[in-house]
Amino acid sequence: MIRALYIGRFQPYHNGHHYVINQIAKEADELIIGIGSAQMSHEPADPFTAGERVLMITGALQDLHKPLYVIPLEDINRNVLWVSHVRAMTPPFHRIYSGNPLVIRLFHEAGIEVLSPAMYERATLSGTKIRGRIVSNELWEDYVPPPVVRVIQEIDGISRIRALNQDDGDYPGL
Amino acid sequence: MIRALYIGRFQPYHNGHHYVINQIAKEADELIIGIGSAQMSHEPADPFTAGERVLMITGALQDLHKPLYVIPLEDINRNVLWVSHVRAMTPPFHRIYSGNPLVIRLFHEAGIEVLSPAMYERATLSGTKIRGRIVSNELWEDYVPPPVVRVIQEIDGISRIRALNQDDGDYPGL
Amino acid sequence: MIRALYIGRFQPYHNGHHYVINQIAKEADELIIGIGSAQMSHEPADPFTAGERVLMITGALQDLHKPLYVIPLEDINRNVLWVSHVRAMTPPFHRIYSGNPLVIRLFHEAGIEVLSPAMYERATLSGTKIRGRIVSNELWEDYVPPPVVRVIQEIDGISRIRALNQDDGDYPGL
Amino acid sequence: MIRALYIGRFQPYHNGHHYVINQIAKEADELIIGIGSAQMSHEPADPFTAGERVLMITGALQDLHKPLYVIPLEDINRNVLWVSHVRAMTPPFHRIYSGNPLVIRLFHEAGIEVLSPAMYERATLSGTKIRGRIVSNELWEDYVPPPVVRVIQEIDGISRIRALNQDDGDYPGL
Amino acid sequence: MIRALYIGRFQPYHNGHHYVINQIAKEADELIIGIGSAQMSHEPADPFTAGERVLMITGALQDLHKPLYVIPLEDINRNVLWVSHVRAMTPPFHRIYSGNPLVIRLFHEAGIEVLSPAMYERATLSGTKIRGRIVSNELWEDYVPPPVVRVIQEIDGISRIRALNQDDGDYPGL
Amino acid sequence: MIRALYIGRFQPYHNGHHYVINQIAKEADELIIGIGSAQMSHEPADPFTAGERVLMITGALQDLHKPLYVIPLEDINRNVLWVSHVRAMTPPFHRIYSGNPLVIRLFHEAGIEVLSPAMYERATLSGTKIRGRIVSNELWEDYVPPPVVRVIQEIDGISRIRALNQDDGDYPGL
Repeated sequence: MIRALYIGRFQPYHNGHHYVINQIAKEADELIIGIGSAQMSHEPADPFTAGERVLMITGALQDLHKPLYVIPLEDINRNVLWVSHVRAMTPPFHRIYSGNPLVIRLFHEAGIEVLSPAMYERATLSGTKIRGRIVSNELWEDYVPPPVVRVIQEIDGISRIRALNQDDGDYPGL
Repeated sequence: MIRALYIGRFQPYHNGHHYVINQIAKEADELIIGIGSAQMSHEPADPFTAGERVLMITGALQDLHKPLYVIPLEDINRNVLWVSHVRAMTPPFHRIYSGNPLVIRLFHEAGIEVLSPAMYERATLSGTKIRGRIVSNELWEDYVPPPVVRVIQEIDGISRIRALNQDDGDYPGL
Repeated sequence: MIRALYIGRFQPYHNGHHYVINQIAKEADELIIGIGSAQMSHEPADPFTAGERVLMITGALQDLHKPLYVIPLEDINRNVLWVSHVRAMTPPFHRIYSGNPLVIRLFHEAGIEVLSPAMYERATLSGTKIRGRIVSNELWEDYVPPPVVRVIQEIDGISRIRALNQDDGDYPGL
Repeated sequence: MIRALYIGRFQPYHNGHHYVINQIAKEADELIIGIGSAQMSHEPADPFTAGERVLMITGALQDLHKPLYVIPLEDINRNVLWVSHVRAMTPPFHRIYSGNPLVIRLFHEAGIEVLSPAMYERATLSGTKIRGRIVSNELWEDYVPPPVVRVIQEIDGISRIRALNQDDGDYPGL
Repeated sequence: MIRALYIGRFQPYHNGHHYVINQIAKEADELIIGIGSAQMSHEPADPFTAGERVLMITGALQDLHKPLYVIPLEDINRNVLWVSHVRAMTPPFHRIYSGNPLVIRLFHEAGIEVLSPAMYERATLSGTKIRGRIVSNELWEDYVPPPVVRVIQEIDGISRIRALNQDDGDYPGL
Repeated sequence: MIRALYIGRFQPYHNGHHYVINQIAKEADELIIGIGSAQMSHEPADPFTAGERVLMITGALQDLHKPLYVIPLEDINRNVLWVSHVRAMTPPFHRIYSGNPLVIRLFHEAGIEVLSPAMYERATLSGTKIRGRIVSNELWEDYVPPPVVRVIQEIDGISRIRALNQDDGDYPGL
């Protein structure tokens, strides 16, 4: 039995994540999706809450037919503790997939080798691009699975993202 | 569509939790299980990590045949922020079940009424009792669903609980 | 010009605090009231929010006719930093009054001598006693200034305190 | 009875804030001023402590002749909890005024509509501009109420701001 | 080359610690002493700052003639991260000595076996006992190395410990 | 007896630090080296753990022949508390040396004057320059004491720094 872990911020969950996770699912019996920076929301680069992201991911992967664990991971803000934090918050896993150099390095120093996930077209498929399209009122719905469109509409996410991208400069941190 | 939330510490998940959740499942289309004090582990009253508790709950409820979200909830340590924290970390819910006076009060002050879950026999079915039985080498396996027994055995949970219940008094906090 | 500081938890503000502060006011031109453990609320020993305590104190002292600063002070959880924290959160003060040995010691080690406030009858006049009377449905209104009675009634404080004093033992920290 | 809330960082309190607050005061019986990022000080963009800002605001508004609550608000660093944090730290309020899109959005999602405060000339009246004038030794005293000038002088604020705007690059965070 | 780690709270450093560390030193080339709960001070059970404890330990071990690293370790408050935290804060070590069941367990789960230090007479030699003797004005100087007596006297530690052991019950957390 | 304090981030410890510390050592009997931002590691500008930095410094200064205290200092993130934090974590000191304007200002406001350390050639001797040389595969070993070269090689620091300087942009904070 192989249980595989994949971690992202999923702001929002998009077709790039979806392609990668479906490829990983072919090589694993169970899947853990870690939602990074889970405590963040209502920021221009992090508009959605962890609960909203859980809903997007679970909706998009409802036909996976393999056990799926979707786990919010709050930031720990000390790189050297992050691997232990991930391992404490998730069921035990046998493989971790990531293309991120820091994640690869931290697991490498902990004695765990990280596998490269399938590649997808980063130039158009990224959270940054999709949030930018929402702000500038361009077509964005084709870049995410249909259940993600529904979640974003239900939570009034379009107007939230647009509001967060206005700024008046001289205001308190919250 | 009704999505219901139930929160516990699940140290460990036992037959009392299992009975209550199965009753709630009859009245709901989807279930969210919040794992309280998710950041705690390796304490006498909190021996298991969040990931281990995710595994227990998911294993025990694998035949539920309803969408299930199992969400670790780290403590926020400010009661007045806890309702907002729970709502941010979980998918939107329509009902919350709890018998705990503080939880009932906090949701009440936030304008959300809490439903009473089914009752079970607290005198024998409690995390405290079951951990006590493990420490004193009494039969405990009958008080939890069989998948929980398997998880505790796989993670060497018996010897962990016994080790945590020794104490030498004059040692550093960690 | 003399600005004096007095710090308490004020759970709730009662006639003992009121007597002491009126005595201090005779020897000072301006008064700072620091509300300790400001982030705490909805606990049996700390039922009221900082905002509610601000309201109690300001209401009770509305006839003081001296400049009054009522400042919530969140715990810093490192004793050795507490004096600097208090000084950063409050306007500069020339005198501090306290009967608490730890407060006296921390200011003493920082080179600031603490004055003894007037005494009042601790046996009956304490937050602990008054909260206990509310829980057990005894007369409590005579032990606090009338504006405090009004604040507690307006925020439904009686039923909050009673709810917080029930406990079911095996529940998550929040 | 109407109690209104206005929140700013007040680094320093200036004539723009003063104009807005005096307009709000015409439509309210009591005023709460929340001091955002209260824990910050001795940074180039946040030079003053919360206590120093309390002193500026209270001094500038001493002729308001309405009940005034000046409340330091420490950052909570999780946007989704901020509305609950503000409500816990301040007396109950009936209106909140803000022109900041994030604040408007967060209160909107909590079911509270935010009013637009009166406008003032942002191009010259902003904390950023005034701190810049202090650093470059330009006239700044005309942009803040006279009691604010006195507070800044008494706490030696001019030399503090100039020191904070020097930087040697390769130094520890604190 | 063998570098060995020993961790304690050292409130204060006493003859029991001193005996154990001298035994460990016979089997190691370099010694790391970790000071647990380094951020705590001015509490009845934790009266001394980390810096004061560094001074006690370094003074007592000045004739060790082996490289010695004395490292304050702030609590991380999540047991599962503690081993990674210790490893990040200290030079790499080849052996760790501890008699504490939780420490033994946490390192065991991280794949590192813990050695048993030499035994000493716990009944009389413990921080709790020595602090108790100071409070009740009994002889305590014979239970700690002479340099520790000097440090405690220089920092006025006797009167600090006595002050911290008075308590007036109804006071703010700090 | 004069005990002097010098604080840096030491990412890594280099010949500039070494020159300054040797100059300070001529005017002091004992030396405290505070390692700032001790909790940081595995970041492009902060690659090394506190423990690794302790090893570099102690190795480079093994021929100092004066008592040396090397103390990790975790960030406290509130400038106004930083002086108290440093004093709590270190043995009492009589002099502090720093060229940093913020450090000078914070100690100045606490009533402690800071001495100017000896100057060294900042243009080539800085952590930023040396990390940049490592990333771009230029000669760097001449800019640090030989024991620092050995530590960096033993902990595989070269490949760590290079890995940390790759970035894929759309990834979770940790």
